[in-house]
Amino acid sequence: MGDDTSIVQSARVSYGKGTKQVSTDKGLIKYLMRHWHSTPFEMCEIKYHIKLPIFIARQWIRHRTANVNEYSARYSILDKEFYLPENNNLAAQSTSNRQGRGDVLEGEQAKEVLELLKHDAERTYANYEKMLNQRYDGSTIDENKKGLARELARMNLTLNTYTQWYWKTDLLNLMNFLRLRADSHAQYEIRVYADIMLNTLKRWVPITFDAFMDYRVGGTEVSAKGKIIIQKLVKGEKVDIEKSGLSKREWNELMVALDLKDKLI
Amino acid sequence: MGDDTSIVQSARVSYGKGTKQVSTDKGLIKYLMRHWHSTPFEMCEIKYHIKLPIFIARQWIRHRTANVNEYSARYSILDKEFYLPENNNLAAQSTSNRQGRGDVLEGEQAKEVLELLKHDAERTYANYEKMLNQRYDGSTIDENKKGLARELARMNLTLNTYTQWYWKTDLLNLMNFLRLRADSHAQYEIRVYADIMLNTLKRWVPITFDAFMDYRVGGTEVSAKGKIIIQKLVKGEKVDIEKSGLSKREWNELMVALDLKDKLI
Amino acid sequence: MGDDTSIVQSARVSYGKGTKQVSTDKGLIKYLMRHWHSTPFEMCEIKYHIKLPIFIARQWIRHRTANVNEYSARYSILDKEFYLPENNNLAAQSTSNRQGRGDVLEGEQAKEVLELLKHDAERTYANYEKMLNQRYDGSTIDENKKGLARELARMNLTLNTYTQWYWKTDLLNLMNFLRLRADSHAQYEIRVYADIMLNTLKRWVPITFDAFMDYRVGGTEVSAKGKIIIQKLVKGEKVDIEKSGLSKREWNELMVALDLKDKLI
Amino acid sequence: MGDDTSIVQSARVSYGKGTKQVSTDKGLIKYLMRHWHSTPFEMCEIKYHIKLPIFIARQWIRHRTANVNEYSARYSILDKEFYLPENNNLAAQSTSNRQGRGDVLEGEQAKEVLELLKHDAERTYANYEKMLNQRYDGSTIDENKKGLARELARMNLTLNTYTQWYWKTDLLNLMNFLRLRADSHAQYEIRVYADIMLNTLKRWVPITFDAFMDYRVGGTEVSAKGKIIIQKLVKGEKVDIEKSGLSKREWNELMVALDLKDKLI
Repeated sequence: MGDDTSIVQSARVSYGKGTKQVSTDKGLIKYLMRHWHSTPFEMCEIKYHIKLPIFIARQWIRHRTANVNEYSARYSILDKEFYLPENNNLAAQSTSNRQGRGDVLEGEQAKEVLELLKHDAERTYANYEKMLNQRYDGSTIDENKKGLARELARMNLTLNTYTQWYWKTDLLNLMNFLRLRADSHAQYEIRVYADIMLNTLKRWVPITFDAFMDYRVGGTEVSAKGKIIIQKLVKGEKVDIEKSGLSKREWNELMVALDLKDKLI
Repeated sequence: MGDDTSIVQSARVSYGKGTKQVSTDKGLIKYLMRHWHSTPFEMCEIKYHIKLPIFIARQWIRHRTANVNEYSARYSILDKEFYLPENNNLAAQSTSNRQGRGDVLEGEQAKEVLELLKHDAERTYANYEKMLNQRYDGSTIDENKKGLARELARMNLTLNTYTQWYWKTDLLNLMNFLRLRADSHAQYEIRVYADIMLNTLKRWVPITFDAFMDYRVGGTEVSAKGKIIIQKLVKGEKVDIEKSGLSKREWNELMVALDLKDKLI
Repeated sequence: MGDDTSIVQSARVSYGKGTKQVSTDKGLIKYLMRHWHSTPFEMCEIKYHIKLPIFIARQWIRHRTANVNEYSARYSILDKEFYLPENNNLAAQSTSNRQGRGDVLEGEQAKEVLELLKHDAERTYANYEKMLNQRYDGSTIDENKKGLARELARMNLTLNTYTQWYWKTDLLNLMNFLRLRADSHAQYEIRVYADIMLNTLKRWVPITFDAFMDYRVGGTEVSAKGKIIIQKLVKGEKVDIEKSGLSKREWNELMVALDLKDKLI
Repeated sequence: MGDDTSIVQSARVSYGKGTKQVSTDKGLIKYLMRHWHSTPFEMCEIKYHIKLPIFIARQWIRHRTANVNEYSARYSILDKEFYLPENNNLAAQSTSNRQGRGDVLEGEQAKEVLELLKHDAERTYANYEKMLNQRYDGSTIDENKKGLARELARMNLTLNTYTQWYWKTDLLNLMNFLRLRADSHAQYEIRVYADIMLNTLKRWVPITFDAFMDYRVGGTEVSAKGKIIIQKLVKGEKVDIEKSGLSKREWNELMVALDLKDKLI
């Protein structure tokens, strides 16, 4: 629903006769993005049909300003489908970042992990069917038994089981989602969805997409203390980190954000 | 965005393979409405472009789950347009209901009220232009003077001045809006908008419209105590109001809701 | 934050000088509840610290108007704790209601189900530790190996694993939650939480609790068509179900709601 | 409800055992603010009782994630109280910024504006009472007449009439409000409220306040293109504005944000 034109249209109703001076739609959208105007972007709406593993669905649902209809495992039997990482995504726990990944696991250990994941998913699913006394295709296993209630049996499934939903949101909240989930700090398994959705954004609202990439995805925030450091650096003045008010960690985050890697300490 | 089919589509993703037994779309939508299912109705979205007096805009905006872009009187000069009630809407204050209307004012008094409203709106608007040192058409009044900032001058306008906005919401929240604002207790001046919007609902999602009229607009709630009274009335038992736990007011509200006017006390 | 008094206080700011006639706080709260006034109830806020199985957390989180901070399995290792139903909650799938429960499973089958659940939860947890190369107490299993990233290893856990969160909401949304989740159609495993929370409601805002039980929990909705049927029944007129516009299912739902079980067909 | 400690408490439930390494509450709150974590700040809630002119209330209410109970002019008669700017706030329309203020009006013109505002507010209020056939103190004007319904008479009031409300929100949304409304681009008449509320923030959650001032209020965003310019400036390289991809306006906004005023063009 809507496109770049709808954003411009609704911004112009706010500005009334006052927008004549903004020469182009592109200029107006860039202005709105730069100054964090929010409501014009809410005039566009998009709906996705998504299949995703439950542990990713649990991250995703934290974005509350969206409309969701999910497959109900109280009502129906879940499909026999699990997410299993590919070898090059089988990362070890990062040693420096508590919620990040480090090197890829290799050799025997990788093989073992994949087998454990596959095996446990298959066995818990088989037991799910057994408790239901019903196979996925709807056929009964033992005519002389009742099956456990679906709403109970589902608790035996592992978190990599796939679910699916319709997910609908407005463009502003979609960009909030993408900003977080297409970011390099996001978990790989949600980032692959975000990357594909970025692509839909590009085809849907190309002008907004460009502004979003420039001001949000590619941009950075600088704190009040950080601004003083930048001023000094630009003027060629010496910066005393100890007196800057920034911790070492914060200093390095700023230098990475600005791609000034020779200043890392 | 969306229609009756989208509601059914998203409900069916929830029910998965389980909905085969619900024979028709109509039956499913009625079921969803009757059991207060909410998320399938959120899959439809609608946008209105509305011109409305400021005192009505202030009521309207209390419905928070919507997207709004309003004409900005900080940015532009408001149009010279005011709401003036027609004679048959010039109601006196109700004597029984503190936020309702009573009889229509007549004769001299009606004439006087209309003239006060018209006169004050015109004078405050003329002074608005004077303070701005600018007329609505953009022409300057006195070349030797500056105008007061628009964001300040607007405070002189009366609450019946028209504003305009784009207002976008999902079908669930639209129905919440209509249920309150198309109700006979709503202020007439917002009800006329709600009535027109009910019409758009009917053309947009006819099955949902029918269910909405039956279960929401035409329906009523009955409290636990009210249920006991209905049971007794149906069984032909005598009901002692004093012992019913209902106040006189509550009793009468129930009888009006059920159209049992011979039971009013 | 807040109590019955805060509701009254904020309602009185709306009514201004107009509320003098409502004699008591209790009368005012009952009036607000009966007429679906919402904003005064939003002035109270409550925060719970809750431990709950993941499959229940997934139901719960669908209530979007709440603030949540959940234990992060990207960041930390989840506790070794699973939900296992007690024998008397080990219900079979209902044959009449696709998302309900029927009789309790008994004897050998019950025993088998419980063992499958327990066994699978324990084995997947053990493999979770194995993949992490770390035990829950933080100790390393094999010094020569790296562990799989926590954000990946968690996908092997079953949906009955416990998580925990802080959940904060306002009184209006708490009542919306309780109305759905303390209802007899809610899944038992979430209803036990709702029942305990109903108790906190009673102690926190006793006047609101009474009104909530009378008008919401104990009350029912009657559709436009249903109202006509009640009128006829009260007047002792004959009702022709075929001509009533109600399906058999809807007719029975109405009679159950009004506790007129001799009218069931 | 809540304070700095509640933020830390709920962040720690997310991090579980993983936060031991963050040494202090202050460090943790700064980290959360810097990385735009949102949910821990939602655990604190605040309620204000505010008297404000209607044209400011209309700006304010656009912040949707809040709970509001406003004085109802359908129900009660509004107080005879208007906002009139002080002389030094009587600003002319800015010539460079369509929604800003320029120089202060002086001499005769200032006097004239103030008199128009005062006069119109008083006259429309007097006519409001006349139409109501009731004075603010509740006394009737003419015993032989009915009064116009309050919900209609109010439309004659000017937008500088005072209303009042209870306004409750969580700390995250309060900061979103303050970031916009305590900003130098906000209208003066709402900024005075925001400034006082900033003060309550400081007393309520002092650690969060410091982080908010550093990272949000005092900070700035830099776009992807802006980052490249900063890199070049820091390295002492020449920047060709034409090739930078920034418009003159955007360039100047960046230099102002970084307080590098010698770079303005």
